[in-house]
Amino acid sequence: MKEKAETKLTGYLKIVEKEKKVVEDRIKKSLVGRKPESLYSPGYYVVETGGKRLRPMLILLSAKAAGGSFKDAYNAAAAVELMHNFTLVHDDIMDNAGKRRNRPTLHVKYDLSTAILAGDSLLSIAYELLIKDCNHNAAEILNAFNSGLIEVCEGQSLDKEFETRKDVTVKEYYVMIQKKTAALIETCCRIGGLLGRGSKEVVKALADFGKYAGLAFQIQDDLLDITGDEKEFGKICGGDLVEGKKTYLFLAALSKAKGNDKKKLLDVIKNKGIERKDIQTYKELYEKLGVLKDAKKEILRLSNVALKKIELLPNQEDREIFYELASSLINRNK
Amino acid sequence: MKEKAETKLTGYLKIVEKEKKVVEDRIKKSLVGRKPESLYSPGYYVVETGGKRLRPMLILLSAKAAGGSFKDAYNAAAAVELMHNFTLVHDDIMDNAGKRRNRPTLHVKYDLSTAILAGDSLLSIAYELLIKDCNHNAAEILNAFNSGLIEVCEGQSLDKEFETRKDVTVKEYYVMIQKKTAALIETCCRIGGLLGRGSKEVVKALADFGKYAGLAFQIQDDLLDITGDEKEFGKICGGDLVEGKKTYLFLAALSKAKGNDKKKLLDVIKNKGIERKDIQTYKELYEKLGVLKDAKKEILRLSNVALKKIELLPNQEDREIFYELASSLINRNK
Repeated sequence: MKEKAETKLTGYLKIVEKEKKVVEDRIKKSLVGRKPESLYSPGYYVVETGGKRLRPMLILLSAKAAGGSFKDAYNAAAAVELMHNFTLVHDDIMDNAGKRRNRPTLHVKYDLSTAILAGDSLLSIAYELLIKDCNHNAAEILNAFNSGLIEVCEGQSLDKEFETRKDVTVKEYYVMIQKKTAALIETCCRIGGLLGRGSKEVVKALADFGKYAGLAFQIQDDLLDITGDEKEFGKICGGDLVEGKKTYLFLAALSKAKGNDKKKLLDVIKNKGIERKDIQTYKELYEKLGVLKDAKKEILRLSNVALKKIELLPNQEDREIFYELASSLINRNK
Repeated sequence: MKEKAETKLTGYLKIVEKEKKVVEDRIKKSLVGRKPESLYSPGYYVVETGGKRLRPMLILLSAKAAGGSFKDAYNAAAAVELMHNFTLVHDDIMDNAGKRRNRPTLHVKYDLSTAILAGDSLLSIAYELLIKDCNHNAAEILNAFNSGLIEVCEGQSLDKEFETRKDVTVKEYYVMIQKKTAALIETCCRIGGLLGRGSKEVVKALADFGKYAGLAFQIQDDLLDITGDEKEFGKICGGDLVEGKKTYLFLAALSKAKGNDKKKLLDVIKNKGIERKDIQTYKELYEKLGVLKDAKKEILRLSNVALKKIELLPNQEDREIFYELASSLINRNK
C-alpha cells in the first residue's frame, strides 16, 4: 500500500517537474528582449528565483483534468505566475518587507519607483500572455482572471486594514484570506478548467477545490511562520508575531485566551508586534491554548472539503493527482 | 464662414457635454457599492474630480466614426479613463507629486500603501468594464488595451531613466512621449474603431490620428507648463524646470544653445532642477533660443499629420468633429 502511494507520488512529481520547466521557460522568455532594460531587468529579477510555481501547476493540472491538455494552458500558467509576482512586489512595498525568497525585495534592490512600475508591467505582460491562450472564450477567461485580481486587491486592502484594527475576528480573517490567497488559487483552477473546455460542473468543482485548498494553504502558511524551518521557509520564524500580524493563530488564541494570557495577546496589538526575544514565549502560549493543534485540524478539514469537491472528476488518475497535490500542500515545510 | 464654424463647434461641444455625463456616471458607478471602503473610497477620490475625459471622448467619437454608435463603447470609455487614472496615481508617487487637479495626490491624502493598491484596483476594474463591451472580438480589443498599458509603463520607465541621464536627445524624447502619452490616445482611437466595427483601414486611420494627436498633446503640455495660466492649468508654471524634467523645450533648447546659454542649461541637469526664482530667467532663455516657437510649430505639424490620417473617414461630419477636437487640443490652455 505504501509502495503504491509512493509510485503515484513519484508520478505526480515527475509531471510537475517536467511541466514546471516548460512554464519557467515561458515566464522568463516573456520578459527577455523587451526594452527598456530599466523596466524589464527588475521584472526579470523577481521571476528568476522561481518559487513553488504552485499556481501555474494548478492551471495545467486543471486543464488536463477538465479534458484538455497541458499545452492548452502554458501561456495562462505563465500569466498567472506573473500576476502573482506583481502582487508580491507591491505587497512587499506595502509590508516594508526586506527579503523575499532569500534575496532583497525589489524596492530594496532597486528603489520604490522601479518596484511599483516593474510590478505594473508584470501584470500587463500577464494579460498579454493570457490572451494568447484564449481562443473560443476570451471574455469568460479574462473575466475569471480579472475577478481573481480584484479579489487579491480587496484581500490585501483588508489585510492592511486589520493591521490597525483591534477587533478583528476569526470570521473576518477568513474573508480576508479567501480574497487575498484563496481567490487566486480558485481562479487558477477555474481558468485551467475553462481552457481545458470542461463542463460547467467540472469547472465549478475545480474552482471549489482551489478555493478550499487555498484557504488551507494560507492557514498552513500562518502555521509555518512559527513552526517552520527558517532556512527552508526563507522567512524568519515568528515574523508574523514580530510584525503583529493578525494571523489565524493569533486571532484563534485571542478568542480562546483569558486573564493574563489575553492581556499578553492584547499587548501585541497595542505595541504593534513583539520583540524577537519574546517569540518563544508566545509560541508556548499558542501551544498552551492549543491553537497550533486547532490550525492543523482546520487545515485538514479544509483540505478534505477541497478533495470532496473533485470527486466528480471523471478520470481517476486526475483525482489522485489532486489528492497528492493537496497532501503536498498540507505537509509542506516551506 | 466664421458663424458656420462656430455653429459646428457648438455642435461638437454639445455632443461632448452630453456624452461626458454618461461616461462620468459609468466611471463613478463602477466604484460605488464595492467593499472594502478602505480600497474603493481612495479610488473614488481619484476619479471624482473629473478632468478633461479626453480619452473616453476619443473612444466614443472613434466608435461613431467607424460606423458604430456611442453606446457601443460606454464601458470601454470608462475603462480607459480608469486605466489612465491608475497611471496617474502611480506616476504621482514616483514623481513625488503633491497635487493633482488642485487637490492633494492620493499618496499625500492617504498613504503610500493605499495609493499603490487603489491604483492597482482601478486598473482591475478597468479590465472588468472593458470586457463588458467586448462581444465579437474580445481578444483583439483586450490586446489593444493591454498593449497601450505596456507602452505607458515603458514610457514612464524611460521618463524616470531620463531624470538621471545627461545625454537625452530630442529623438529619444519622442520615443518616450510616444509610449508614455501617445500610445494610450492611439489605443483609445483603435479600441473605439474596433468597437464601432470599422474596417481595417478605418481602424488604422483612427489609431494613427490618435498617435499623432497624442504627440502634439504632450508637446502642448510641455509648452503649457511654462506659458499656461497657473489657475487654469492646475499646476505651478515652470514646474518642469524646477524638477529638471527633460521636456521638449528643454531638450530643444539644449541642442540649440551655445556658450554661456548651454552652460546654464547644463546647470539644470547638474543641479537636478532650478530654483523657483529662476523660472523667469529660463523662460527668457527659451524665448531667446526660439524653442517656444519651435514647440508651437511642432504641435501644428503633428496635428496636421493627425488630421491627414482621418481624411479617409467616410462621413464628413465625423471628419469635422475630429478637426475640431484636434483644434481644441492645440488651442487649449489647460
